Amino acid sequence: MLPNLPSGFTAAGIAAGLKPSGDRDLALIVAERRCSAAGVFTQNLFAAAPVQWSRLHVPSDRVRAIVINAGNANAATGAQGLENAKLIAELAAQAIGCEPDQVLVASTGVIGRQLPMNAVASGIPRAATELASTPEAFQNAAHAIMTTDTHPKVVSRTLVLAKQEITLYGFCKGAAMIGPNMATMLAFVLTDARVGPGLLQGMLAQAVDDSFNCISVEGHTSTNDTVIALALDGGGAPLDGDELKAFGRELTALCTHLARLIVDDAEGCTHTITIEVEGCQTRDEADRIAKTIAHDALVKTAICGADPNWGRIVSAAGRAGVPFDIGEVTLWLNGIALYQDGAPLEFDAKQLSDSIRAARDVSLRLRLRRGDASIRHWTSDLTAEYVRLNADYTT
Amino acid sequence: MLPNLPSGFTAAGIAAGLKPSGDRDLALIVAERRCSAAGVFTQNLFAAAPVQWSRLHVPSDRVRAIVINAGNANAATGAQGLENAKLIAELAAQAIGCEPDQVLVASTGVIGRQLPMNAVASGIPRAATELASTPEAFQNAAHAIMTTDTHPKVVSRTLVLAKQEITLYGFCKGAAMIGPNMATMLAFVLTDARVGPGLLQGMLAQAVDDSFNCISVEGHTSTNDTVIALALDGGGAPLDGDELKAFGRELTALCTHLARLIVDDAEGCTHTITIEVEGCQTRDEADRIAKTIAHDALVKTAICGADPNWGRIVSAAGRAGVPFDIGEVTLWLNGIALYQDGAPLEFDAKQLSDSIRAARDVSLRLRLRRGDASIRHWTSDLTAEYVRLNADYTT
Repeated sequence: MLPNLPSGFTAAGIAAGLKPSGDRDLALIVAERRCSAAGVFTQNLFAAAPVQWSRLHVPSDRVRAIVINAGNANAATGAQGLENAKLIAELAAQAIGCEPDQVLVASTGVIGRQLPMNAVASGIPRAATELASTPEAFQNAAHAIMTTDTHPKVVSRTLVLAKQEITLYGFCKGAAMIGPNMATMLAFVLTDARVGPGLLQGMLAQAVDDSFNCISVEGHTSTNDTVIALALDGGGAPLDGDELKAFGRELTALCTHLARLIVDDAEGCTHTITIEVEGCQTRDEADRIAKTIAHDALVKTAICGADPNWGRIVSAAGRAGVPFDIGEVTLWLNGIALYQDGAPLEFDAKQLSDSIRAARDVSLRLRLRRGDASIRHWTSDLTAEYVRLNADYTT
Repeated sequence: MLPNLPSGFTAAGIAAGLKPSGDRDLALIVAERRCSAAGVFTQNLFAAAPVQWSRLHVPSDRVRAIVINAGNANAATGAQGLENAKLIAELAAQAIGCEPDQVLVASTGVIGRQLPMNAVASGIPRAATELASTPEAFQNAAHAIMTTDTHPKVVSRTLVLAKQEITLYGFCKGAAMIGPNMATMLAFVLTDARVGPGLLQGMLAQAVDDSFNCISVEGHTSTNDTVIALALDGGGAPLDGDELKAFGRELTALCTHLARLIVDDAEGCTHTITIEVEGCQTRDEADRIAKTIAHDALVKTAICGADPNWGRIVSAAGRAGVPFDIGEVTLWLNGIALYQDGAPLEFDAKQLSDSIRAARDVSLRLRLRRGDASIRHWTSDLTAEYVRLNADYTT
């Protein structure tokens, strides 16, 4: 089924020569006129040059384009890296006819190498000539931003309101160096909703907090994490009241779907683990416990081995820095209670192990009795294949 | 070469039937009279039953014995687990002739299962009949506390003072679930120095902070981490002044050596990584950066693959939560500068990769310019073998 596309946007994805494989590696997204733009970026101090450029230019009501390259992160590249990010915006502005500060930039790939600017400089005008509003053109763009992803990640949603229909189209990349702290990878959302940049920024931040900030692969917050949303006034009524809330819910649902696609495609992943932590005093408490479990190599290898070694899960919770009473802890694995109010329960280990082995999805639920706050995280298991992929990435 | 043993201690290590393999799994250490005892224990909320027992009884000037079992951690075992830990102390007290509160207890193995107390109850008196002051008896004890360790870990040191010679003998276990937060595994230090429990506790805490708290395998603070030091007055002069300081240095050196043995024997380890972070405002800042690097799966897999992918190292530092200026960062890998004052340097990647592949030891040095505080951590690389070992541990 082809995804719905919001009207007024064109896309291209070409092979500019940045990936050694010769695959598509440069994407260009263009709005036919000024649009609202919002962005959420990495909290890593080594924010890449394209992040440093783009975060200066959102929120904005006049963005026209996004240029994204894979194959090189343009991170930890010093002053020259910043010059190169700016030059990309200038080249794209020239190619499509706008100002450089109307162009956002994102990069992904190896850290610490200067971009091959000859390839980029010849690629950008070529991408501009291939811009189209077809599903294929958008698919090419989604393909061009991949690194170790095994497939392009695209989600679209349609919101039917009283007097208009709004389309949200999102695509993202990410399979490792995923650790929630604001944005955690590259994701782009395009919509034809009439919504101003301030509102869009607020709703995007909320959506990211409930989606991309609740996933991890190994917990490493990348230097290049970027989520950008563009809203191009599609001629409908401006959104407000309940319709604005409905749009916010759609945006969160879209981002959550994109985020789960990343975890499902995590490097070497054989299981997707949903971690629900409830009964905390604050969402931050629940978040700390969920993240400590989600980042724990011993929990992740146990799930890889279909091993119901639940002691590792409660032990991970116990080192999260939240001062709970261990006599009030209950743990379920795939719906089976294993530890209740501080004491172990009898269970059929063989049957539980079989249930983990049989399905890609695994659920952990940890309940405290400190309050009403809860959170849900998603992570991948840790497999020998993850190690193999990451032991050989640059060489 | 046989290690020196401090006089006045006896040891035994027997097979009580706790390990499915039938290997030795119960160790007993006895001081021939009351001694000073100090202990440092896990900060995990799910502190195991033996930890809950032992931490009530140190520092002390009247400890007589330590009972240690492998094969079962007696952690997350509720009220029954606590009863069992107490019963172990009572059984040992009966076997050697002292009070239960003069017996310290430690356990290691699978979390969340009740101890098979029949095996323990018949094992303790049997171990008591095998107590001896020979190197073999101590080696049996070191053997009995192993889990996935590939060899017993024993270090001894001799301190020659003006009027006496002091022996320090230490043994430990640990190959995974290693994450520095107070003690990080089981370690035992025996000495014939005349030093009171208060002083011994202070010096042990300092030694642990510079040794066991500076190592990690995957960063998971275990439920059972325990370091215990026993000092049995050997008839020499009480230590004070410079001699006390010299003893403290020896204790730190011994603990550091034991800690490095753990990292060297980390599950699946092919490289031991020394991480030096310097130029920080406080030791805590340096510690946060070093730990974030040490726990980073992407750094650890890169080293496994002999991949000089230094961007992952600076990126890990950048997510550690220390607000440094990235323009003041310099990074060396095996002595080669790769990133200097915020910009990448040219280097021979093939040569550097060869140097990583050729040696088991790898050194990372990260320098900031915020102050004079520094720290040194040790960690292992992350290999497919680590995953394999941990995917199959209980099943």
